Amino acid sequence: MRSFVKTFVFKTERTYELIDITRSVEEVVRESGIKNGICLVYAPHATAAVVVNEHERGLMEDILRKIEEEFPRDGKWKHNIIDDNAAAHLGSVFLSTSKVFPVINGELIRGTWQNIFLVEMDGPRSRRRVLVQVLGE
Amino acid sequence: MRSFVKTFVFKTERTYELIDITRSVEEVVRESGIKNGICLVYAPHATAAVVVNEHERGLMEDILRKIEEEFPRDGKWKHNIIDDNAAAHLGSVFLSTSKVFPVINGELIRGTWQNIFLVEMDGPRSRRRVLVQVLGE
Amino acid sequence: MRSFVKTFVFKTERTYELIDITRSVEEVVRESGIKNGICLVYAPHATAAVVVNEHERGLMEDILRKIEEEFPRDGKWKHNIIDDNAAAHLGSVFLSTSKVFPVINGELIRGTWQNIFLVEMDGPRSRRRVLVQVLGE
Repeated sequence: MRSFVKTFVFKTERTYELIDITRSVEEVVRESGIKNGICLVYAPHATAAVVVNEHERGLMEDILRKIEEEFPRDGKWKHNIIDDNAAAHLGSVFLSTSKVFPVINGELIRGTWQNIFLVEMDGPRSRRRVLVQVLGE
Repeated sequence: MRSFVKTFVFKTERTYELIDITRSVEEVVRESGIKNGICLVYAPHATAAVVVNEHERGLMEDILRKIEEEFPRDGKWKHNIIDDNAAAHLGSVFLSTSKVFPVINGELIRGTWQNIFLVEMDGPRSRRRVLVQVLGE
Repeated sequence: MRSFVKTFVFKTERTYELIDITRSVEEVVRESGIKNGICLVYAPHATAAVVVNEHERGLMEDILRKIEEEFPRDGKWKHNIIDDNAAAHLGSVFLSTSKVFPVINGELIRGTWQNIFLVEMDGPRSRRRVLVQVLGE
C-alpha cells in the first residue's frame, strides 16, 4: 500500500467563494500512479469546506447564497464577541472539510455533474490549503 | 492491500425518496472477503445523497420533509433558470454523496439504528448508481 | 497494510453537548505506529454526530444553538409519535457520524483551529461510543 500526498495553496478573493479544484485533484491521482484505492480531499481550516456538485455559474451562486442565509453573519453568535466569523465556522461544521472518492483503474471516480470545490466562507485569504491524499496500490 | 468494488443501480419512483441500501452494502463487504479496512459508499450524482440513520417509517418521512423545507423547490434559485432542480443540488451539497464505514473482522461496523440510505431528491430516475468499495486486507 | 482500531466510551451529561475527543484520536494514531494512511473517526449512533471545528467556548455554544434551532425538538415530527428524539436523528443525518483525516509521518493532519468533537444531541447517555480506526503502513 502506498500513500501519496500533495498540498495545494489557493488565494481567495471574496468573503464567500467557490473554487473549482477538480483538475488539481485529478492531477494528483494521475501523478500518484496509484491504480486502485481512495482519494481524500482535506482542507485543514475551520472557516472553509470541501463540497461536490455541478460547475454551473447560477448554481454556484445559489450554493453561496444558501450558505449565507443559513448561517447569517449578523446572527447573535457568541463567537463574534471575540472574532467576527462565527458564520463561517458554522458553515464549515455543517458542510465538512473533507470528501472521499474511489480511485479505480487509475481514475478518480465522480459523476458527470460532480466537480470538487473549496468553499471559502471567510475570505479573502492568501493561503487556503487543500491536501489531496491518494491511498492504495 | 485489496480494493473490491461493486456498483448497484437503483430505480427511484418519486421526487423525494429514501432507499435503504444497507443489505446491498453488507453483501459487498462479505463478498469482498476483506477482513479489515474500510467501506466507502459513493453516489456519483449531483442531485442525490447518501445518509445514515434509523429505518423507521415516520422518521424517514421526517427526513424527506426536512430536506424539502430546507431546500424549497420554488426558491428563487438561479440554477432553475436553466433547469428545475436547484433544490436537489443544494440537498446533495449539504448532505454529501458519500459515507465511510469501518470494516472489522469481515463485518461492516454500524450502530443498531444506523441503516444506510440513498437519498433521491430529483426523481423518479431509472438509473441511480451507488458504488460500494471495500479497501483493506 | 495494517488496520488499528480502538473504541472509546464517553458519558454525556446534557441533552446537547460537544465533547472534545481530539486528544483521544491523536493517541490512537500514535499508538497504532502507522506512519502513512488515514484515520476514520466513527460514532455508531443515530442521534449523535462527529464534527470538526475550533475549541472556543462561545463557538461551541453557537454550534449547539444552531443545531437546536435547525432541528427543533418540538417540531411536528412523525418519529416523535413513537419516541421523542426526531430532532436528534435529523441532526445526525445532516452532520454525519464520521470524519476522515490524513495521517502523514505518524501525525494526524488537522488545522490549527480544527478540533474533533463528538456531538451529543439526545443525552444524557452513559455509553456513547466512538471508534477510531487508523489504516495504513
